[in-house]
Amino acid sequence: MTQQSAPPLTAITIGVVDVAASTAFYTAGLGFREISAVPGEITFLQVGPGLMLALWNVASMPSEYGAVGHGELAPPMSLGHNVADPDTVQRLYDAALAAGAESINPPTAQSWGGTSACIADPDGFRWDFVHNPGFRVDADGTVVSV
Amino acid sequence: MTQQSAPPLTAITIGVVDVAASTAFYTAGLGFREISAVPGEITFLQVGPGLMLALWNVASMPSEYGAVGHGELAPPMSLGHNVADPDTVQRLYDAALAAGAESINPPTAQSWGGTSACIADPDGFRWDFVHNPGFRVDADGTVVSV
Repeated sequence: MTQQSAPPLTAITIGVVDVAASTAFYTAGLGFREISAVPGEITFLQVGPGLMLALWNVASMPSEYGAVGHGELAPPMSLGHNVADPDTVQRLYDAALAAGAESINPPTAQSWGGTSACIADPDGFRWDFVHNPGFRVDADGTVVSV
Repeated sequence: MTQQSAPPLTAITIGVVDVAASTAFYTAGLGFREISAVPGEITFLQVGPGLMLALWNVASMPSEYGAVGHGELAPPMSLGHNVADPDTVQRLYDAALAAGAESINPPTAQSWGGTSACIADPDGFRWDFVHNPGFRVDADGTVVSV
Protein backbone atom coordinates (compact mmCIF):
# COMPACT_ATOMS: atom_id res chain seq x y z
CA MET A 1 0.00 0.00 0.00
CA THR A 2 1.27 3.49 -0.76
CA GLN A 3 2.99 4.90 2.31
CA GLN A 4 0.89 6.89 4.73
CA SER A 5 1.54 7.80 8.33
CA ALA A 6 -1.75 6.58 9.76
CA PRO A 7 -1.95 2.92 10.82
CA PRO A 8 -4.60 0.85 9.05
CA LEU A 9 -8.16 0.98 10.26
CA THR A 10 -8.70 -2.47 11.83
CA ALA A 11 -11.96 -2.18 13.75
CA ILE A 12 -15.45 -0.82 13.27
CA THR A 13 -17.97 -0.79 16.11
CA ILE A 14 -21.71 -0.19 15.74
CA GLY A 15 -24.25 0.20 18.53
CA VAL A 16 -27.10 -2.32 18.43
CA VAL A 17 -30.28 -2.60 20.46
CA ASP A 18 -30.42 -6.43 20.42
CA VAL A 19 -27.00 -8.07 20.26
CA ALA A 20 -28.40 -11.56 19.63
CA ALA A 21 -30.63 -10.42 16.77
CA SER A 22 -27.84 -8.42 15.15
CA THR A 23 -25.40 -11.29 15.55
CA ALA A 24 -27.82 -13.64 13.79
CA PHE A 25 -28.32 -11.11 10.98
CA TYR A 26 -24.60 -10.69 10.37
CA THR A 27 -23.60 -14.37 10.74
CA ALA A 28 -26.40 -16.67 9.55
CA GLY A 29 -27.86 -13.85 7.45
CA LEU A 30 -24.97 -12.09 5.73
CA GLY A 31 -22.32 -14.79 6.21
CA PHE A 32 -19.68 -13.13 8.37
CA ARG A 33 -17.65 -15.27 10.81
CA GLU A 34 -18.00 -14.76 14.57
CA ILE A 35 -14.63 -14.37 16.32
CA SER A 36 -15.84 -14.16 19.92
CA ALA A 37 -18.72 -12.77 21.96
CA VAL A 38 -19.96 -11.75 25.38
CA PRO A 39 -23.67 -12.64 25.12
CA GLY A 40 -25.95 -9.65 25.40
CA GLU A 41 -23.00 -7.26 25.40
CA ILE A 42 -20.82 -7.55 22.30
CA THR A 43 -20.07 -9.78 19.31
CA PHE A 44 -16.87 -9.53 17.28
CA LEU A 45 -17.03 -10.50 13.61
CA GLN A 46 -14.37 -10.86 10.96
CA VAL A 47 -15.28 -8.60 8.03
CA GLY A 48 -12.00 -8.45 6.12
CA PRO A 49 -8.34 -9.40 6.42
CA GLY A 50 -7.31 -8.14 9.87
CA LEU A 51 -10.57 -6.20 10.08
CA MET A 52 -13.23 -6.65 12.79
CA LEU A 53 -16.80 -5.43 13.09
CA ALA A 54 -18.03 -5.26 16.69
CA LEU A 55 -21.76 -5.31 17.44
CA TRP A 56 -21.88 -3.58 20.81
CA ASN A 57 -24.92 -3.08 23.01
CA VAL A 58 -25.70 0.58 22.36
CA ALA A 59 -26.63 1.06 26.02
CA SER A 60 -23.00 0.40 26.98
CA MET A 61 -21.42 2.74 24.46
CA PRO A 62 -21.47 5.98 26.45
CA SER A 63 -19.00 4.44 28.92
CA GLU A 64 -16.28 4.82 26.31
CA TYR A 65 -17.79 6.95 23.52
CA GLY A 66 -19.63 9.68 25.45
CA ALA A 67 -22.92 11.12 24.12
CA VAL A 68 -23.76 8.67 21.33
CA GLY A 69 -27.04 6.98 20.49
CA HIS A 70 -29.72 6.35 17.91
CA GLY A 71 -31.93 9.29 17.00
CA GLU A 72 -34.86 9.88 14.68
CA LEU A 73 -32.72 9.53 11.57
CA ALA A 74 -30.44 6.61 10.80
CA PRO A 75 -26.71 7.28 11.29
CA PRO A 76 -25.25 9.22 8.32
CA MET A 77 -22.86 6.50 7.23
CA SER A 78 -22.60 3.18 5.48
CA LEU A 79 -20.50 0.06 5.48
CA GLY A 80 -19.92 -1.35 2.04
CA HIS A 81 -18.67 -3.87 -0.41
CA ASN A 82 -17.08 -2.56 -3.58
CA VAL A 83 -17.58 -5.34 -6.07
CA ALA A 84 -16.47 -6.23 -9.56
CA ASP A 85 -19.71 -5.91 -11.52
CA PRO A 86 -23.39 -4.93 -11.33
CA ASP A 87 -24.51 -8.56 -11.15
CA THR A 88 -22.70 -8.94 -7.83
CA VAL A 89 -24.48 -5.81 -6.55
CA GLN A 90 -27.79 -7.49 -7.36
CA ARG A 91 -26.75 -10.79 -5.76
CA LEU A 92 -25.63 -9.16 -2.49
CA TYR A 93 -28.77 -7.02 -2.36
CA ASP A 94 -31.00 -10.06 -2.85
CA ALA A 95 -29.09 -12.01 -0.20
CA ALA A 96 -29.42 -9.16 2.31
CA LEU A 97 -33.18 -8.94 1.80
CA ALA A 98 -33.39 -12.72 2.23
CA ALA A 99 -31.54 -12.26 5.53
CA GLY A 100 -34.22 -9.82 6.69
CA ALA A 101 -32.66 -6.50 5.76
CA GLU A 102 -34.85 -3.53 4.92
CA SER A 103 -34.49 -2.29 1.36
CA ILE A 104 -33.46 1.35 1.09
CA ASN A 105 -32.61 1.41 -2.62
CA PRO A 106 -32.59 -1.46 -5.12
CA PRO A 107 -29.62 -1.70 -7.49
CA THR A 108 -29.59 1.57 -9.42
CA ALA A 109 -27.35 2.97 -12.16
CA GLN A 110 -25.98 6.15 -10.57
CA SER A 111 -25.04 9.48 -12.16
CA TRP A 112 -21.43 8.95 -11.06
CA GLY A 113 -21.03 6.04 -13.44
CA GLY A 114 -21.52 2.95 -11.33
CA THR A 115 -24.26 0.85 -9.80
CA SER A 116 -25.22 0.80 -6.13
CA ALA A 117 -27.82 -0.66 -3.82
CA CYS A 118 -28.50 0.14 -0.17
CA ILE A 119 -30.05 -1.85 2.67
CA ALA A 120 -30.55 -1.24 6.40
CA ASP A 121 -29.50 -3.64 9.16
CA PRO A 122 -31.75 -4.31 12.19
CA ASP A 123 -30.72 -0.96 13.76
CA GLY A 124 -30.94 1.05 10.55
CA PHE A 125 -27.23 1.08 9.77
CA ARG A 126 -26.82 1.30 6.03
CA TRP A 127 -24.82 -1.11 3.90
CA ASP A 128 -24.16 -0.27 0.30
CA PHE A 129 -23.18 -2.69 -2.40
CA VAL A 130 -21.33 -0.82 -5.09
CA HIS A 131 -19.77 -1.41 -8.47
CA ASN A 132 -17.64 1.66 -9.07
CA PRO A 133 -15.57 1.48 -12.26
CA GLY A 134 -13.59 4.50 -11.03
CA PHE A 135 -11.47 2.45 -8.64
CA ARG A 136 -8.98 -0.37 -8.96
CA VAL A 137 -7.28 -2.27 -6.13
CA ASP A 138 -3.68 -3.29 -6.78
CA ALA A 139 -2.16 -6.53 -5.50
CA ASP A 140 -0.56 -4.75 -2.53
CA GLY A 141 -3.93 -3.32 -1.45
CA THR A 142 -3.41 0.17 -2.84
CA VAL A 143 -6.68 1.67 -4.06
CA VAL A 144 -6.19 3.62 -7.28
CA SER A 145 -8.48 6.10 -9.00
CA VAL A 146 -8.80 5.12 -12.69
CA MET B 1 -8.62 -15.72 6.30
CA THR B 2 -10.95 -18.38 7.64
CA GLN B 3 -13.63 -19.08 5.07
CA GLN B 4 -16.82 -17.08 5.26
CA SER B 5 -19.45 -16.50 2.64
CA ALA B 6 -19.59 -12.71 2.89
CA PRO B 7 -17.17 -10.73 0.73
CA PRO B 8 -14.77 -8.47 2.62
CA LEU B 9 -15.93 -5.07 3.74
CA THR B 10 -13.99 -2.69 1.48
CA ALA B 11 -15.62 0.70 1.99
CA ILE B 12 -16.87 2.87 4.83
CA THR B 13 -18.72 6.12 4.16
CA ILE B 14 -19.42 8.85 6.71
CA GLY B 15 -21.56 11.93 6.24
CA VAL B 16 -19.73 15.22 6.84
CA VAL B 17 -20.94 18.81 6.99
CA ASP B 18 -17.76 20.35 5.52
CA VAL B 19 -15.94 18.08 3.08
CA ALA B 20 -12.84 20.30 2.89
CA ALA B 21 -12.47 20.54 6.67
CA SER B 22 -12.94 16.79 7.13
CA THR B 23 -10.51 16.05 4.32
CA ALA B 24 -7.86 18.23 5.98
CA PHE B 25 -8.46 16.53 9.34
CA TYR B 26 -8.07 13.03 7.89
CA THR B 27 -5.12 13.75 5.56
CA ALA B 28 -2.86 16.45 7.03
CA GLY B 29 -4.20 15.73 10.52
CA LEU B 30 -4.40 11.96 10.90
CA GLY B 31 -2.16 10.99 7.99
CA PHE B 32 -4.43 9.06 5.64
CA ARG B 33 -3.80 9.18 1.90
CA GLU B 34 -6.31 10.80 -0.45
CA ILE B 35 -7.25 8.59 -3.41
CA SER B 36 -9.52 11.00 -5.27
CA ALA B 37 -12.09 13.69 -4.60
CA VAL B 38 -14.95 15.72 -5.98
CA PRO B 39 -14.47 19.04 -4.15
CA GLY B 40 -17.36 19.92 -1.86
CA GLU B 41 -19.00 16.56 -2.50
CA ILE B 42 -16.83 13.59 -1.55
CA THR B 43 -13.26 12.59 -0.73
CA PHE B 44 -12.01 9.01 -0.90
CA LEU B 45 -9.21 8.00 1.48
CA GLN B 46 -7.18 4.85 1.78
CA VAL B 47 -7.53 3.55 5.35
CA GLY B 48 -6.25 -0.02 5.00
CA PRO B 49 -5.23 -2.56 2.37
CA GLY B 50 -8.06 -2.48 -0.17
CA LEU B 51 -10.14 -0.42 2.26
CA MET B 52 -11.54 3.06 1.56
CA LEU B 53 -13.10 5.67 3.80
CA ALA B 54 -15.35 8.10 1.94
CA LEU B 55 -16.12 11.52 3.40
CA TRP B 56 -19.43 12.35 1.73
CA ASN B 57 -21.37 15.60 2.00
CA VAL B 58 -24.12 14.57 4.41
CA ALA B 59 -26.62 16.67 2.46
CA SER B 60 -26.22 14.31 -0.50
CA MET B 61 -26.59 11.07 1.42
CA PRO B 62 -30.39 10.71 1.35
CA SER B 63 -30.20 10.26 -2.45
CA GLU B 64 -28.79 6.77 -1.88
CA TYR B 65 -29.21 6.08 1.85
CA GLY B 66 -32.71 7.37 2.59
CA ALA B 67 -33.52 9.00 5.94
CA VAL B 68 -30.04 9.47 7.42
CA GLY B 69 -28.53 12.49 9.15
CA HIS B 70 -26.90 13.90 12.23
CA GLY B 71 -29.09 14.23 15.33
CA GLU B 72 -28.61 15.49 18.87
CA LEU B 73 -26.38 12.57 19.80
CA ALA B 74 -23.29 11.46 17.90
CA PRO B 75 -23.72 8.33 15.77
CA PRO B 76 -23.52 5.17 17.92
CA MET B 77 -20.42 3.77 16.29
CA SER B 78 -16.67 4.09 16.07
CA LEU B 79 -13.85 3.53 13.64
CA GLY B 80 -10.74 2.17 15.24
CA HIS B 81 -7.18 1.08 15.28
CA ASN B 82 -6.35 -2.04 17.26
CA VAL B 83 -2.72 -1.58 18.21
CA ALA B 84 0.05 -3.61 19.79
CA ASP B 85 0.51 -1.86 23.12
CA PRO B 86 -0.81 0.91 25.40
CA ASP B 87 1.98 3.30 24.41
CA THR B 88 0.67 3.30 20.84
CA VAL B 89 -2.81 4.10 22.16
CA GLN B 90 -1.35 7.17 23.88
CA ARG B 91 0.62 8.21 20.79
CA LEU B 92 -2.40 8.00 18.46
CA TYR B 93 -4.58 9.83 20.96
CA ASP B 94 -2.03 12.64 21.30
CA ALA B 95 -1.66 12.90 17.52
CA ALA B 96 -5.43 13.12 17.04
CA LEU B 97 -5.74 15.94 19.55
CA ALA B 98 -2.87 17.73 17.82
CA ALA B 99 -4.86 17.38 14.59
CA GLY B 100 -7.81 19.16 16.20
CA ALA B 101 -9.88 16.21 17.39
CA GLU B 102 -12.12 16.56 20.42
CA SER B 103 -11.13 14.33 23.34
CA ILE B 104 -13.90 11.98 24.46
CA ASN B 105 -11.82 9.73 26.73
CA PRO B 106 -8.08 9.77 27.35
CA PRO B 107 -6.27 6.42 27.34
CA THR B 108 -7.91 4.36 30.07
CA ALA B 109 -7.33 0.85 31.42
CA GLN B 110 -10.69 -0.84 30.82
CA SER B 111 -12.49 -3.52 32.84
CA TRP B 112 -12.26 -5.89 29.85
CA GLY B 113 -8.50 -6.06 30.18
CA GLY B 114 -7.15 -3.63 27.61
CA THR B 115 -6.54 0.07 27.14
CA SER B 116 -8.60 2.39 24.97
CA ALA B 117 -8.95 6.05 24.12
CA CYS B 118 -11.68 7.81 22.17
CA ILE B 119 -11.78 11.01 20.15
CA ALA B 120 -14.37 12.72 17.94
CA ASP B 121 -13.78 13.89 14.38
CA PRO B 122 -15.13 17.26 13.14
CA ASP B 123 -18.65 15.78 12.80
CA GLY B 124 -18.59 13.90 16.09
CA PHE B 125 -17.79 10.48 14.62
CA ARG B 126 -15.87 8.51 17.21
CA TRP B 127 -12.49 6.90 16.66
CA ASP B 128 -11.15 4.55 19.27
CA PHE B 129 -7.53 3.57 19.70
CA VAL B 130 -7.41 0.20 21.42
CA HIS B 131 -4.90 -2.25 22.78
CA ASN B 132 -6.90 -5.44 23.31
CA PRO B 133 -4.78 -8.41 24.42
CA GLY B 134 -7.75 -10.67 23.67
CA PHE B 135 -7.12 -10.68 19.92
CA ARG B 136 -4.34 -11.80 17.62
CA VAL B 137 -4.15 -11.30 13.86
CA ASP B 138 -2.54 -14.16 11.93
CA ALA B 139 -0.38 -13.66 8.84
CA ASP B 140 -3.32 -14.46 6.53
CA GLY B 141 -5.45 -11.76 8.17
CA THR B 142 -7.54 -14.09 10.34
CA VAL B 143 -8.48 -12.46 13.64
CA VAL B 144 -8.26 -14.94 16.51
CA SER B 145 -9.62 -14.69 20.04
CA VAL B 146 -6.82 -15.57 22.48
